[in-house]
Amino acid sequence: MRRRPPHRAPRPDAQAATEEGVWLHGLHPVAAALANPARRLRRLLVTRGAEAELAERVPAPWRIAPEFVERERLDRVVGADAVHQGAALLAEPLPAPALEAVLEGTTGPVLVLDQVTDPRNVGAILRSAAAFGAAAVLMQERHAPPETGALARAASGALEVVPVLREVNLARAIEALKKAGLWVVGLEAAGPVTLAQSGLTGRRVALVLGAEGEGMRRLTREGCDELVRLPIRPAMESLNVSNAAAVALYELGRE
Amino acid sequence: MRRRPPHRAPRPDAQAATEEGVWLHGLHPVAAALANPARRLRRLLVTRGAEAELAERVPAPWRIAPEFVERERLDRVVGADAVHQGAALLAEPLPAPALEAVLEGTTGPVLVLDQVTDPRNVGAILRSAAAFGAAAVLMQERHAPPETGALARAASGALEVVPVLREVNLARAIEALKKAGLWVVGLEAAGPVTLAQSGLTGRRVALVLGAEGEGMRRLTREGCDELVRLPIRPAMESLNVSNAAAVALYELGRE
Repeated sequence: MRRRPPHRAPRPDAQAATEEGVWLHGLHPVAAALANPARRLRRLLVTRGAEAELAERVPAPWRIAPEFVERERLDRVVGADAVHQGAALLAEPLPAPALEAVLEGTTGPVLVLDQVTDPRNVGAILRSAAAFGAAAVLMQERHAPPETGALARAASGALEVVPVLREVNLARAIEALKKAGLWVVGLEAAGPVTLAQSGLTGRRVALVLGAEGEGMRRLTREGCDELVRLPIRPAMESLNVSNAAAVALYELGRE
Repeated sequence: MRRRPPHRAPRPDAQAATEEGVWLHGLHPVAAALANPARRLRRLLVTRGAEAELAERVPAPWRIAPEFVERERLDRVVGADAVHQGAALLAEPLPAPALEAVLEGTTGPVLVLDQVTDPRNVGAILRSAAAFGAAAVLMQERHAPPETGALARAASGALEVVPVLREVNLARAIEALKKAGLWVVGLEAAGPVTLAQSGLTGRRVALVLGAEGEGMRRLTREGCDELVRLPIRPAMESLNVSNAAAVALYELGRE
């Protein structure tokens, strides 16, 4: 498993961990990062039109002076396939907080992703996590997508809202969640009861989702206090993983 | 709005409406189409490994004889970016049923998409629609993605399960749904009540979702009997559209 040195990213959008930072692009992610005091900013490239749209979302003065560019320049910076909407922001990745600190200051569930690797799915999951009040999203460092522009764009600003924890050992992280008093619920098609039937009211929950197809790995599954399913028709094996996460987070927050 | 002639699709995956049909790829979509007697099949290209995996899902004899190929051949047929898993099936698009026929034989909600154009989102929505028992997904012909391999792959077999209706005029289609006795509910962040609060029990619902960002168009919104929202935090403006559809369909089916 040789890893490519991070500063030699083959495509612009894969610049997750260049020495310089991450190129965030699109109005939502750029505005959210501009408005987040915890996010360290390096360069802001905008078209005149995008500057006006950003100013409507984040009142000036900004913490960084914009550099005005043509759209073609942005195409080159973030990759022609990326939808930049005239704005790209070079930012440092957010510092990962400690699990204990996250749990202390919040009450929502923790979402645990076991080998969910598609950046668009993970971005959409972060967006739902922020929308439904999750305290954090926890992933395994080695089997999770890096913080790229594509992920940030799918997250639509949620990267600035919901803490993302990247742990070396997921089974150990699940143990830490249990020790902190959380009830660890794994989502699996073969779960004996549905999430709604599982009687979780009043409990703080860590919700674990595995990769599409393979599901959770054995050690992850064995670490769960309980396995539950979503009530889907036999005609379909499963939902898209970001859709499953959204439904489960919605159910957990339902009154 | 000149349209490119369909037989000159610029990329392999865009072969939605070639004279020959649609190249479905990936084990799930190919197995589901093989098992669907309503789907007319033209050619099946598989690797030896994929044939064995397909045979586990769909017992032989199949309705079409497989042609054995190398992976490289499949890369060329469906495009190198597409995840084909060793299987590609050239099939005719499914015939679109009439709205009346769909409503008569079923009881689930109808999902209406107003200008949701991303094929991955529409595919995931079809998957959730099938999983949560929607009677049909209705889109406007001009503002919806064609039936491509990418859409079918995101749908993970759901194209064979849930009827897809493509209407010329969406406002008129909504009127037809009302005349058939459905209660038309539009999903919008500014909806006065949440979907769960709206008291829809016992009613057959048509659920309308607009594009991300713009939402429903004016005529679509005005055609709704009621507007509702999902209960999301103020920190986020919206969910990914496929996640919103999944949550709403789940709520509608919740007992």
